[in-house]
Amino acid sequence: MNQNTSSKNATKKTDWLAMYRHIRTHTETICEPLQTEDYVVQPIVDVSPPKWHLGHTTWFFETFLLQPHLPDYQVFNANYNYVFNSYYETIGARVIRTDRGNLSRPSVAEIYQYRAYVDAQMALFLQSIHFTQHLHPLLELGLNHEQQHQELLLADIKYILGHNPLFPVYESKKMPENKVFLDDSMCTINEGIYEIGYNGDGFCFDNEKNRHKVFLNRFQIATSPVTNEEFLQFIESGGYRDFKYWHAEGWDWVQKHQIEAPLYWHFIDDRWMYYTFNGLQEINRQQAVCHVSFYEAAAFAQWKEMRLPTEAEWEVAAEELDWGSRWEWTNSAYLPYPGFQKEAGAVGEYNGKFMVSQMVLRGASIATPANHSRKTYRNFFYPNLRSQFTGIRLAK
Amino acid sequence: MNQNTSSKNATKKTDWLAMYRHIRTHTETICEPLQTEDYVVQPIVDVSPPKWHLGHTTWFFETFLLQPHLPDYQVFNANYNYVFNSYYETIGARVIRTDRGNLSRPSVAEIYQYRAYVDAQMALFLQSIHFTQHLHPLLELGLNHEQQHQELLLADIKYILGHNPLFPVYESKKMPENKVFLDDSMCTINEGIYEIGYNGDGFCFDNEKNRHKVFLNRFQIATSPVTNEEFLQFIESGGYRDFKYWHAEGWDWVQKHQIEAPLYWHFIDDRWMYYTFNGLQEINRQQAVCHVSFYEAAAFAQWKEMRLPTEAEWEVAAEELDWGSRWEWTNSAYLPYPGFQKEAGAVGEYNGKFMVSQMVLRGASIATPANHSRKTYRNFFYPNLRSQFTGIRLAK
Amino acid sequence: MNQNTSSKNATKKTDWLAMYRHIRTHTETICEPLQTEDYVVQPIVDVSPPKWHLGHTTWFFETFLLQPHLPDYQVFNANYNYVFNSYYETIGARVIRTDRGNLSRPSVAEIYQYRAYVDAQMALFLQSIHFTQHLHPLLELGLNHEQQHQELLLADIKYILGHNPLFPVYESKKMPENKVFLDDSMCTINEGIYEIGYNGDGFCFDNEKNRHKVFLNRFQIATSPVTNEEFLQFIESGGYRDFKYWHAEGWDWVQKHQIEAPLYWHFIDDRWMYYTFNGLQEINRQQAVCHVSFYEAAAFAQWKEMRLPTEAEWEVAAEELDWGSRWEWTNSAYLPYPGFQKEAGAVGEYNGKFMVSQMVLRGASIATPANHSRKTYRNFFYPNLRSQFTGIRLAK
Amino acid sequence: MNQNTSSKNATKKTDWLAMYRHIRTHTETICEPLQTEDYVVQPIVDVSPPKWHLGHTTWFFETFLLQPHLPDYQVFNANYNYVFNSYYETIGARVIRTDRGNLSRPSVAEIYQYRAYVDAQMALFLQSIHFTQHLHPLLELGLNHEQQHQELLLADIKYILGHNPLFPVYESKKMPENKVFLDDSMCTINEGIYEIGYNGDGFCFDNEKNRHKVFLNRFQIATSPVTNEEFLQFIESGGYRDFKYWHAEGWDWVQKHQIEAPLYWHFIDDRWMYYTFNGLQEINRQQAVCHVSFYEAAAFAQWKEMRLPTEAEWEVAAEELDWGSRWEWTNSAYLPYPGFQKEAGAVGEYNGKFMVSQMVLRGASIATPANHSRKTYRNFFYPNLRSQFTGIRLAK
Repeated sequence: MNQNTSSKNATKKTDWLAMYRHIRTHTETICEPLQTEDYVVQPIVDVSPPKWHLGHTTWFFETFLLQPHLPDYQVFNANYNYVFNSYYETIGARVIRTDRGNLSRPSVAEIYQYRAYVDAQMALFLQSIHFTQHLHPLLELGLNHEQQHQELLLADIKYILGHNPLFPVYESKKMPENKVFLDDSMCTINEGIYEIGYNGDGFCFDNEKNRHKVFLNRFQIATSPVTNEEFLQFIESGGYRDFKYWHAEGWDWVQKHQIEAPLYWHFIDDRWMYYTFNGLQEINRQQAVCHVSFYEAAAFAQWKEMRLPTEAEWEVAAEELDWGSRWEWTNSAYLPYPGFQKEAGAVGEYNGKFMVSQMVLRGASIATPANHSRKTYRNFFYPNLRSQFTGIRLAK
Repeated sequence: MNQNTSSKNATKKTDWLAMYRHIRTHTETICEPLQTEDYVVQPIVDVSPPKWHLGHTTWFFETFLLQPHLPDYQVFNANYNYVFNSYYETIGARVIRTDRGNLSRPSVAEIYQYRAYVDAQMALFLQSIHFTQHLHPLLELGLNHEQQHQELLLADIKYILGHNPLFPVYESKKMPENKVFLDDSMCTINEGIYEIGYNGDGFCFDNEKNRHKVFLNRFQIATSPVTNEEFLQFIESGGYRDFKYWHAEGWDWVQKHQIEAPLYWHFIDDRWMYYTFNGLQEINRQQAVCHVSFYEAAAFAQWKEMRLPTEAEWEVAAEELDWGSRWEWTNSAYLPYPGFQKEAGAVGEYNGKFMVSQMVLRGASIATPANHSRKTYRNFFYPNLRSQFTGIRLAK
Repeated sequence: MNQNTSSKNATKKTDWLAMYRHIRTHTETICEPLQTEDYVVQPIVDVSPPKWHLGHTTWFFETFLLQPHLPDYQVFNANYNYVFNSYYETIGARVIRTDRGNLSRPSVAEIYQYRAYVDAQMALFLQSIHFTQHLHPLLELGLNHEQQHQELLLADIKYILGHNPLFPVYESKKMPENKVFLDDSMCTINEGIYEIGYNGDGFCFDNEKNRHKVFLNRFQIATSPVTNEEFLQFIESGGYRDFKYWHAEGWDWVQKHQIEAPLYWHFIDDRWMYYTFNGLQEINRQQAVCHVSFYEAAAFAQWKEMRLPTEAEWEVAAEELDWGSRWEWTNSAYLPYPGFQKEAGAVGEYNGKFMVSQMVLRGASIATPANHSRKTYRNFFYPNLRSQFTGIRLAK
Repeated sequence: MNQNTSSKNATKKTDWLAMYRHIRTHTETICEPLQTEDYVVQPIVDVSPPKWHLGHTTWFFETFLLQPHLPDYQVFNANYNYVFNSYYETIGARVIRTDRGNLSRPSVAEIYQYRAYVDAQMALFLQSIHFTQHLHPLLELGLNHEQQHQELLLADIKYILGHNPLFPVYESKKMPENKVFLDDSMCTINEGIYEIGYNGDGFCFDNEKNRHKVFLNRFQIATSPVTNEEFLQFIESGGYRDFKYWHAEGWDWVQKHQIEAPLYWHFIDDRWMYYTFNGLQEINRQQAVCHVSFYEAAAFAQWKEMRLPTEAEWEVAAEELDWGSRWEWTNSAYLPYPGFQKEAGAVGEYNGKFMVSQMVLRGASIATPANHSRKTYRNFFYPNLRSQFTGIRLAK
């Protein structure tokens, strides 16, 4: 459906610089509708301030490309490593995640200066002899990293504005339209040995390897994601009040947080409304349900007397599916593929160390940047998380 | 290695009663060395007071067999459902887990009376016409449930006594000897399609089904578990202080709780000691390391440049392994097998609702009752838990 | 009304031993109705297990009298200092308060042996030449300390049994009857300079000194405490649901804990019941309201358009008051009197270090031992505490 | 020393408007050096975002003066009541204190528009016939309320910048100079009956009434506050490591938070530095120690073998003291004076409902606005708070 960021055949210098500029610019385009104050706040630990995303993605290029590989590079500000390092233990101390929203400085203007400075240096670097071929994968990683943060940015912006009692409008033209789904057909995949995992010659994350064989029983999988209409039926039939559909952990979560609907849904004057990038609106019943936790996805499937697909089932069936609107919770835990190897050094911390306690999501969403999705992509979140653009696909 | 509790061919009435008595008596034998006070306390939420185990296992027989199936059965005490229901939401309100250690009543003597009463009624019941064949699986479930609690009892007793500053002795003759391991060979299993899951005609838990095919790459697996000697090398080489061996979640756990060794280990006067059922003793280097979390198991494997086996690998290789001393952390998350079905009603809550966020352990331990282990058994705990008799087996 | 434990004129050796035995025996009499299990649990951090009280009071005599002053005294168990030291930082490490309920050992039987051993040694000591006159105040402190714990024991026993879903009966004959109050008259005290604080020649705590002058405006004070009848009117008129009667901190407490009535009150089948030492009973409307927090006492007074007395007002009016049924919350914070001096050494930690954030209670209660009350006695608790036998007296 | 905001003799219309403008402008002057981002964050629950202070003080005038008293007044934004109400339960729902830092909107620019709008309306109102004499006290309350927030603003700005790893400079010229103190003399006040509490004809808060008689013993009180030099001696002599100087609650606080020095002090390269409005600087030993908790103040006094004065002692001696640099912790709890009466309605919530668990501070600080201090002023904070400009004065 979508295409990969790059292929190894297209590594001409000019391409890299254009690609760098294109992706870097897109990040700033996402932030254009924000007011300065919107860049600063961190309402919950899982949501980072937009200005932190702007700085952190820039820090990645400075730390992993410019500092080690551009001779005589002067860091923009030596204190920024402390502020913008997210979780790379190798690279020294870092502001802990819960504290990011306490930092008013560096200011948004200073961070944009930081971006401009690093971008100028990167332009020099990418056109220099120092940008040798063995650094191409590292640049690609940095660009894909920035694209991941573009999606996180949109989710975090939605959280910040959607939890403000004034429900401010972001700007609809920055976001693709939400599709509508009318089809509830299922396709059947036969028992057999299949291969999953990345095996192209473009970019992929380390967690998509090795490509390997899996044995699958015959299964059926819905070609479209679950809609708001269907999810409303679950709500109205008391799905949130009957423990029998829920994991024990999910039921505790429902009780503790008094969950009654997906994130951003509000029952106002006898109507279900939800917060969108255009403000508060009535639910569109034909759109795919969004912002549900794994617990909710699994409970919905149980109520439907079906189940969520595994990630292998999803990938094998992907060509038959209408995907790309929602990150779809699978019933697979996020674990290494056979033969998975962490890369050496700090970039080795990228994926492997998160392979416990999280669930895999497959597909992509309306917030995923163009050219940043593929059917082998393994996204992962804790099962209680709802701020991403998550949805449900049924299997049986 | 071990045999199952029963087989469907041996369902004569007299057998069931003898088996019931044998298992029920063993629970009380485990508690013989306790003082009354030891039955009462709950030092952490994961550890239940021994008297609660005694009551809860009894409540199971009363609630699922006697009440619905023995005509005119009089419950021993109508309030006990509230006290001894553990998590069956179907069966009504329950004392929440964190409150069990606050209850001094019912007294230990009253709970033993409760056991005696239910045992007498069960004896009548099992010899009556009311104990029809379709109830045999329910009885078997109750007996296996009690055996599971026998192991939990031993783990909880060890926790209670091992966290008392007086380090009281339990009584060694109640526990089998710990084996010593001298071998570090590995066996090799070839790539291929294998079947895992239970397919005998005896008892198994619902989570062991369906038996199904899996495709495995070629792998090697150690025939013996990791010893204290090997784990000491990990400690002494700084394994607990280098984040690179750890999952991010595990590293947070190490930092937050200042973990420096397995549970029950104490560094006293320049020697490593550990608390055992015989009190504080010097580490026996040839015994299998015990009471480690999944995080520690995974970090150890990473330090060894190996990995933990998956549960499928473990089961396929089981015949070649020396297992049964420790519950062995696998790198598999606890998820349903293809075709898994919850049973109808309250017993359907037994396993399925825990299938998120936990890791599978395979094998058995010195605390597992005789006749309560099989190679398809799927134990599961949260990755931070260490109070069970957990150990490590390496693969690559 | 009540008399003091001793006077300096009555310090003959035989008296001290008899007094010691009398007080020590009374502690054990209080515990007679308990089952072993009741001695062990600690439902909340503010409630200590009864066996801890038994050990701690004994540890006081061992640590402050026998060890330093009886030659060749052998401590019963060197580990007990760690277990039974409550808060004396001078005397070394201690089990933190939240952990007391996790300790099954020493057993109840062992603690009674400890008491017997220390009592035998104390008998020798009190009759020996080593018990010199300058040690009399220390013994008196130990005896008053034990009497304080007798009242705490009763409060903690009530909490343990009263929070058990089986509502077990303690034993009424161990407790004096609750008086009934029919009078709502007030007495008037004129403006003037008064003296408060202890100035007799018997025992008093350091916090009752120095006796000093205070200037009081004219005030009125109720001669009887507030009854359940009056408090029911507060409840029924919505007192718990209107913030305007409450301190901000009290209102937060009401909201957070969903407080709707005094501790131990339950609204069952349209009637207000409360847990008493005789089990669950219907409210006796003429008894003094009991088990209220300072917040509730102050809110009630506000609702009545009156106020709580200060401790100086209370003491000055004491001769006119019917007191001794309830510890009466005053509107005075617990602070040092002019000229207050901590005593040197560990016993100096007795009172002074608590002189922040707590409120003073005056009087005594049905749980106070005979001969352990006087009108200058300053009891103190945090304003949210309700497990003591606390009540309300109005002033204006 | 300082003079009061107004006197009842000076209530000409023009005066009120000038005073209103003067005070409102000063708030904005304080914020001039801030960048937009600095207005938004809330690093801890006790620190409010500067933009919240700007809005809340404005909301006070809108809610209590314009809405009820200016005919046809149109509220600026009906949602602002929810955002900017701090604690007035009477006035409806409010954003809870911990959430203020999550709100990026209304933006800083919008809040300045809100201020401009309300100020214009207030100018009309204060010159209109609607501003009748009985409203003068309410306006005065609003102006004093705004002055209180000016000091809180400075404390919160210092906290926000001083906890940023970049230690940004505020702007020194916005703050008065810190005085130096060289004198350690004490003055003596004789035993007697004194009067305390406000009795002038200007403005005072309700908690300063009634003026009433107190009896004081003879005491001595230092004429100058404790300096950094003296406090350094306390640190260097191990004052933070010896429990005997501390309240039990204070010692727990020291242990839990690993307190080793006043807030904003950092031991860097063998020197004690502190964060000031001009950035990180070496300690000036002759300035008064600042940003200490009550616990630290009391422990310091104990170490000096002195004590803190009571608020009555402070007020009686005030004419002899060099005060105004620091809010001085007294050893008095914040409780009502004899005859204290809450005012009717929402403004009655101003002071009375906080009269539990807090300690009184007397004096004023370098952050107190001119004309907003008097010797009868009763400030109050919880004993652990250090973000205000608090200091120590000794007595004995």
